[in-house]
Amino acid sequence: MKVYGDLKSGNCLKVKWVCDRLALPYSWIAVDILKGESRTSQFLKLNGAGQVPVVEFDDGRTLAQSNAIIRYLARGSDLIPSDAFAAAKMDEWLFWEQYSHEPYIAVCRSQMVYLGKTASDLDPDKVKRGYAALARMEHELASKRFLVGDRFSLADVALLAYTRLAHEGGFDLDGYASLRRWIDDAEKALALPPARI
Amino acid sequence: MKVYGDLKSGNCLKVKWVCDRLALPYSWIAVDILKGESRTSQFLKLNGAGQVPVVEFDDGRTLAQSNAIIRYLARGSDLIPSDAFAAAKMDEWLFWEQYSHEPYIAVCRSQMVYLGKTASDLDPDKVKRGYAALARMEHELASKRFLVGDRFSLADVALLAYTRLAHEGGFDLDGYASLRRWIDDAEKALALPPARI
Repeated sequence: MKVYGDLKSGNCLKVKWVCDRLALPYSWIAVDILKGESRTSQFLKLNGAGQVPVVEFDDGRTLAQSNAIIRYLARGSDLIPSDAFAAAKMDEWLFWEQYSHEPYIAVCRSQMVYLGKTASDLDPDKVKRGYAALARMEHELASKRFLVGDRFSLADVALLAYTRLAHEGGFDLDGYASLRRWIDDAEKALALPPARI
Repeated sequence: MKVYGDLKSGNCLKVKWVCDRLALPYSWIAVDILKGESRTSQFLKLNGAGQVPVVEFDDGRTLAQSNAIIRYLARGSDLIPSDAFAAAKMDEWLFWEQYSHEPYIAVCRSQMVYLGKTASDLDPDKVKRGYAALARMEHELASKRFLVGDRFSLADVALLAYTRLAHEGGFDLDGYASLRRWIDDAEKALALPPARI
């Protein structure tokens, strides 16, 4: 299996983390987003949406969308709750991440880290919505160890990707004690070094 | 089961269509988004994200995010491919819909239909990305009857919701013959009257 990805992208890291955690063998094919390598005609044959990550299986079949990929790779593992309703709550977080979290937290971070913007250059609406996403997570995690109850799941993998890097997008997590506790726990679950000091 | 939704919202209609198609009994609880009814403290107890649709089961458990809801309600039905990889391709479309289609097609339509904007008032970047989403679907549907091969699935349900209303957001589908053919087929699969004349 080949994983086409860019280590700068949290969406790509989700796939790497799940492969590593489940000991799935893969080759990592580096695709530099900033150099436009996900928009070449060759790459568009792998994924017509022109986005990383993409997984290519040995038989040539391909799969895109980070959360669809990890859901497929982790099927039958302890990263997906066996109870159907708990799995649906996990899906709720996966879709929420792509609609209400990533477009603000990841985009602000990308603009600061890769486009050289400062915090004061950011779109105030994106910052506001980013904080709303963090506040919702803080509220949920005040009473739960992980996003879907007491067990680490793909919901935590998906939300960890950019939440642990939120400070790089100018977000101040000082008032978010439960969120910081969860970041530590989720990083430990994936055997990652801490992204924040 | 109670479905909290607004019939103006394609995301809510997805849930209605799946319930109707699978003959799942439900009560529809109307929530008027434009009147702020999805942001009241009472509603936020149902869904901390303040979004419709939300489903409340008889035991009080709740589930949000349109695509997570339809995935849960349709489990075991012919709307989800039984093959794991085909189901993953369906998921790929579901996540793509929320990230690369809905934020452009649905938002332009909402701004024109409910906020009184004209096509020339729309954000040109949103229009451009909306057309990019439609072009990708057109390309895929030129060689396939439905989005995941020959069988109607939740991928078609999710993408139909706003694609059939794209003209209300100023999008001209005249050059998109495969897309228009698919809209007809998908509307027939759900026994819906045509949204376009």
